[in-house]
Amino acid sequence: ALQRERFVSTMKEQAEIGGTADGGLHRLALSDDDKEIRDWFMEQLTAADLSVRVDEFGNMFGRRAGTDPDAKPVLVGSHLDSQPYGGIYDGALGVIAALELIRTLNDNELETEHPIEIVNWTNEEGSRFQPAMQGSGVWAGAHDLEEEYAKTDVDGNVFEEELERIGYKGEEPCEPPEEYEAYLELHVEQGPYLEENKKDVGVVTGIVGFTWGAITFYGEADHSGPTPMHYRQDALVAAADVITQIRRIPSTLGERTVGTTGYIDAKPNSINIIPEEVTFTWGFRDPSDDVIDEARRRVLEEAEWAAEREGLEWEYEDRMRAPAVEFADGCVDAVQTAADELGYDSMQIFSGAGHDATHMHSICDTGMVFAVSENGKSHNESEYTSWDDCYKASSTIANAAVDLAGG
Amino acid sequence: ALQRERFVSTMKEQAEIGGTADGGLHRLALSDDDKEIRDWFMEQLTAADLSVRVDEFGNMFGRRAGTDPDAKPVLVGSHLDSQPYGGIYDGALGVIAALELIRTLNDNELETEHPIEIVNWTNEEGSRFQPAMQGSGVWAGAHDLEEEYAKTDVDGNVFEEELERIGYKGEEPCEPPEEYEAYLELHVEQGPYLEENKKDVGVVTGIVGFTWGAITFYGEADHSGPTPMHYRQDALVAAADVITQIRRIPSTLGERTVGTTGYIDAKPNSINIIPEEVTFTWGFRDPSDDVIDEARRRVLEEAEWAAEREGLEWEYEDRMRAPAVEFADGCVDAVQTAADELGYDSMQIFSGAGHDATHMHSICDTGMVFAVSENGKSHNESEYTSWDDCYKASSTIANAAVDLAGG
Ligand SMILES: NC(=O)NCCC(=O)O
Ligand SMILES: NC(=O)NCCC(=O)O
Repeated sequence: ALQRERFVSTMKEQAEIGGTADGGLHRLALSDDDKEIRDWFMEQLTAADLSVRVDEFGNMFGRRAGTDPDAKPVLVGSHLDSQPYGGIYDGALGVIAALELIRTLNDNELETEHPIEIVNWTNEEGSRFQPAMQGSGVWAGAHDLEEEYAKTDVDGNVFEEELERIGYKGEEPCEPPEEYEAYLELHVEQGPYLEENKKDVGVVTGIVGFTWGAITFYGEADHSGPTPMHYRQDALVAAADVITQIRRIPSTLGERTVGTTGYIDAKPNSINIIPEEVTFTWGFRDPSDDVIDEARRRVLEEAEWAAEREGLEWEYEDRMRAPAVEFADGCVDAVQTAADELGYDSMQIFSGAGHDATHMHSICDTGMVFAVSENGKSHNESEYTSWDDCYKASSTIANAAVDLAGG
Repeated sequence: ALQRERFVSTMKEQAEIGGTADGGLHRLALSDDDKEIRDWFMEQLTAADLSVRVDEFGNMFGRRAGTDPDAKPVLVGSHLDSQPYGGIYDGALGVIAALELIRTLNDNELETEHPIEIVNWTNEEGSRFQPAMQGSGVWAGAHDLEEEYAKTDVDGNVFEEELERIGYKGEEPCEPPEEYEAYLELHVEQGPYLEENKKDVGVVTGIVGFTWGAITFYGEADHSGPTPMHYRQDALVAAADVITQIRRIPSTLGERTVGTTGYIDAKPNSINIIPEEVTFTWGFRDPSDDVIDEARRRVLEEAEWAAEREGLEWEYEDRMRAPAVEFADGCVDAVQTAADELGYDSMQIFSGAGHDATHMHSICDTGMVFAVSENGKSHNESEYTSWDDCYKASSTIANAAVDLAGG
């Protein structure tokens, strides 16, 4: 069994790097705080006697050898980057659970047939640089390395330069060095269903797909007073029209469809100037890829109509298209069995958030465990999972991983 | 007659201070560039032998004595601050026209019965600090000095501190030191009517009133994926709803009613976080104060409905309420006569933009001259008025001012 005290204190330790005054975490991908947490994680990997690799995209691996030289490794992990003013569990819990699994095997001198490898994926959050799940996406071959290196944040900082700056552009190629047996990931649910159903842990059966993009409308800056309404080419009014539709489109598609505009930027952003250029994002998710594609088609249609009404030029940019995935029975069963054997009340659940497991699904059998999220709240400093629930989910993934690794 | 060459070169000279690469002007109130243009203007006032005063709100006056010690001064001027990436004529043309009037009187050793005073008002634009027409508003008693000193820009800089920083918190009280005979202001039209009607100059008969304010919605940051639509409290969706109504409300009120959202700011502004806090502005204008008040009532009603739909807290802040004004016949006639005598084709026109003349109206008889704006465009670097049109409008105001000053 995992050492609960060490587990909790390790969680608290990580939360101090990039921790906010209000108890959250602001540890954006490739920021100085990301460097610091990576340095800290590197120390933990070394202290746990793992053989460490950092790949050219910054993904960090630590491997514990298995007894069978031909057995494929079981990979377990998540991410240490956070949302802007996000919570301390999102990502970190999955990495610390993986670390505690290794420490526990070491403490008890337990051997597994398969090697167990733990991982911290680069830029899972997708906030500073898009797409989300970027490190696992490149590693799994869903994205081109050079294209992702060239991505920029809103201030124009280039991904590759930022990766070099923090010293985590490693030597290893960003790709699987061999075949993998399975990938397991623990994450907080970030939705309300486990709590609503009073469950201890979630056995994740798949992950919604999503489409992300940005639309820019180009109008004409002009005076907000003497410019008659019918002379205007107002980029913000068009954006507002589309944003209200992004709220509405999900209700015309599926039960689980969600649509969000998280980002908007208006220029010149002055009270008495008609907005000339407005960029905003769309994001739609659903368990069905057809629904995702239809949502994307509709939002672009709405943009076309809004541009026509206001007499604007416009363009769009796709920022992400993650496929909907359903996990392999073997992994779902391993997680379910672990939860059952530990005596935890569980339910099977489809993830509404994206996870690195999305991409790992194309590499090997993949499964996930969810921990309860209070009020379903995340991407917020008030994100909360009790230490009890953290521990239950961590114990579940540990047992499932050892099971799959033949321990 | 004004010296056309000196007039044009003075216009070009001022346009270099805070001039942008694209031929516009970025000279925000109380910025370093505002300090520089004020220093330059001070030199011009002194070189023109005027007796100079700077008041405690930064308004700058230069007076040329009249022959009758009992005659009240005629005030002529406008403002030297600009919009962010605005044009080189908006404001500056009216100040330079006033300066050239003085220089021409000096050159020709002409005397007037009344003193003629020229003025550069502080923060007419209202972009960095609200309200617009702030300096003239305090001077005319429409606003409280201390309240305006306490205003802040979006970065939290305090008006009074910025005024001290640039060295223009003067000694004089910010109020009329005596009674005034009249106030005249030349400005670019900023609307399309003079050009559409192929006129040389506009004889302004009044100024629309306006209401400005800002609405803030407070929702809950949460994850854009696993958070079901009906769990959301999305501050940006509510803002978008109201912004589309701000486009629509004018069409339900008057022929000249306009409504605009120029500014929006969303937090935390991340692609996969439901927006938690969004602030945006409203601005409505109309020649009727009743229409203005009704527009304000309706936008707040829309905000209440949108907040209810999304389950948000909200608040609003009034940022400006300028009354609609109609100019005194005496000034309108003086401007009309000047245009006629100079052989310019003119039309009477109601201003859709706010001007310092709005506040001067409560102090003394007030009038304005408009110069043609190409395409009606302003608050944009591509704002354009030909030197011909600048000169015609400047000649008109010069003659009108000399007429009113008994010269
Ligand atoms: N789990 C999680 O928050 N991932 C970030 C990418 C996303 O789903 O928006
Ligand atoms: N004339 C002018 O642009 N004034 C600024 C205040 C406003 O009317 O918006």
